[in-house]
Amino acid sequence: MKIAVLGTGEVGRRIAGRLVELGHQVTLGSRTAQNAAAADWAAGTGGAHGTFARAAADSELVVNATGGLVSLAALTAAGEENLSGKVLVDVANPLDFSGGFPPKVVQVDGLSLAEQIQRAFPRARVVKTLNTMNNEVMVRPGLVPGHHTVFLGGDDAEAKAVVAALLREFGWTAEQILDLGDLSSARDTEQAVSLWVRLYGVLGRPDFNFAVVTP
Amino acid sequence: MKIAVLGTGEVGRRIAGRLVELGHQVTLGSRTAQNAAAADWAAGTGGAHGTFARAAADSELVVNATGGLVSLAALTAAGEENLSGKVLVDVANPLDFSGGFPPKVVQVDGLSLAEQIQRAFPRARVVKTLNTMNNEVMVRPGLVPGHHTVFLGGDDAEAKAVVAALLREFGWTAEQILDLGDLSSARDTEQAVSLWVRLYGVLGRPDFNFAVVTP
Repeated sequence: MKIAVLGTGEVGRRIAGRLVELGHQVTLGSRTAQNAAAADWAAGTGGAHGTFARAAADSELVVNATGGLVSLAALTAAGEENLSGKVLVDVANPLDFSGGFPPKVVQVDGLSLAEQIQRAFPRARVVKTLNTMNNEVMVRPGLVPGHHTVFLGGDDAEAKAVVAALLREFGWTAEQILDLGDLSSARDTEQAVSLWVRLYGVLGRPDFNFAVVTP
Repeated sequence: MKIAVLGTGEVGRRIAGRLVELGHQVTLGSRTAQNAAAADWAAGTGGAHGTFARAAADSELVVNATGGLVSLAALTAAGEENLSGKVLVDVANPLDFSGGFPPKVVQVDGLSLAEQIQRAFPRARVVKTLNTMNNEVMVRPGLVPGHHTVFLGGDDAEAKAVVAALLREFGWTAEQILDLGDLSSARDTEQAVSLWVRLYGVLGRPDFNFAVVTP
């Protein structure tokens, strides 16, 4: 699949690298065409890089891995026409670190970042997933042993099926993928990230995950 | 131990009943001395019942199982002098159902309910725990198989040890009890309850729990 990964931070590079490894044709998107991190990543992996708009235009599926507080700006730069009709996988978290650590989860008017993105780009098919864990666990769930969980939420069932298939490629089993329903569920997974951040401090390691355990 | 459980709803009655079963001397506290639910509970279990103040005065340890939006009022009725120096186990969640379902988690000025209680009653030794699961699982963790987690947070290490010992009596193992540190961690566990509520809707059953899974 032709996939754009927007955001050249650790999360974006990790997801993009794994997608290349899985055989996808990946463009890492950044604000400018001459982004050093993106160029390095492309040189090292054989992927492509370019502006947000170029990356999105060239893709069938778009991953938003930008910082949650700048995601709307990044997607605006990507261009509504380049997102229209496409599955938009939102893995970002709207965390405000300006008051120090721990960060605050910012949900304007009680809406999740994912819902704000869906409102701003109504023809994109937004799916929220993977935002409740570290980026290494996202793409290699086997790093955490046994049963643990990745959540999925979105208003477009077909788009969720496409994303679930990608998660399976990453290594997630059907039992580990938990569909929470519509995109308003992103409010809950984004809020749960404050507990993730706390646990990261307590455990002193990022390679853990939440599980939902049922009898 | 002489224990007051404040709140005659399902959570309060469940915890109080389990504590009686474990051999503790329990008083179920309510707003009025003639509460029908409390009287029924006492008649059925051999526990005692009385006003919030009476229950707290007679106890060494107090459990706040009132509704989160009325907890401060209930504890004020219990009386600062009756809480002073005592371990105060806060299992409540500040959920606002006035806008329908799902409820909103209310944290005034970004403070958890547990921190608000600690500020209002500085000589109580507040410990937040058990608020991230259904009341049956709280007192019988074996209802959920395998590894799952109960969180603990508070500013008084000795109080946390007392509460951890009570959790052990309920059936929680040392591996299942996860100390998140100080009481500000209650912000995170209270916020995570929105995900619990969502999962309850999706799974259609309350007997599940979160686990924190590490390698």
